Amino acid sequence: MGYHQLSELGTREPMAGFVGRFIHSERATLVYWAIKAGAQLPVHSHPHEQIVNMLEGEFELTIDGQTRRLTVGAVAVIPPNAVHSGRSLTECRILDVFCPVREDYRY
Amino acid sequence: MGYHQLSELGTREPMAGFVGRFIHSERATLVYWAIKAGAQLPVHSHPHEQIVNMLEGEFELTIDGQTRRLTVGAVAVIPPNAVHSGRSLTECRILDVFCPVREDYRY
Repeated sequence: MGYHQLSELGTREPMAGFVGRFIHSERATLVYWAIKAGAQLPVHSHPHEQIVNMLEGEFELTIDGQTRRLTVGAVAVIPPNAVHSGRSLTECRILDVFCPVREDYRY
Repeated sequence: MGYHQLSELGTREPMAGFVGRFIHSERATLVYWAIKAGAQLPVHSHPHEQIVNMLEGEFELTIDGQTRRLTVGAVAVIPPNAVHSGRSLTECRILDVFCPVREDYRY
């Protein structure tokens, strides 16, 4: 069990322009990102399912060659191992849900 | 894969005062709740892990006898099978992440 307050969590910037607050539960990792305008998410993939929740701003996301411009209220499901990339068109706030836990994001 | 826009999803009110928009992925269910003030979440449990993300408003949550008042930026992790209950103190917006999929929330 755990009660967390985002403002009390430290931040980490694993990619340039992507400043995240990380919560690891038993089965998932949540990352609350504050993303700078113009930040680039390089083409990559991982075995975790990822669900992208747009909270603020505009982000251009490409999943398996399909590109969409995401704004508030957009939710994108990235299947395990799907190749994806993106870039922020404005400052953004995004909540990413990864399942299972992103062990590489523990710190 | 799937791109969704919350405003285009239908709503469902499985408990009085809890109006939800549901997204089921392969490994998780996300529910975006609009909750009326004074709505009651009865004591219950389920085998799914649940992560409660407070987006707006105030919600009083009790997990295994530990009660907290959640406001924006609070994240609560409810372990599988943990007994929990709650009530909204104001109108709220909450994003719940369930892992695995809530089959009982499919419709």
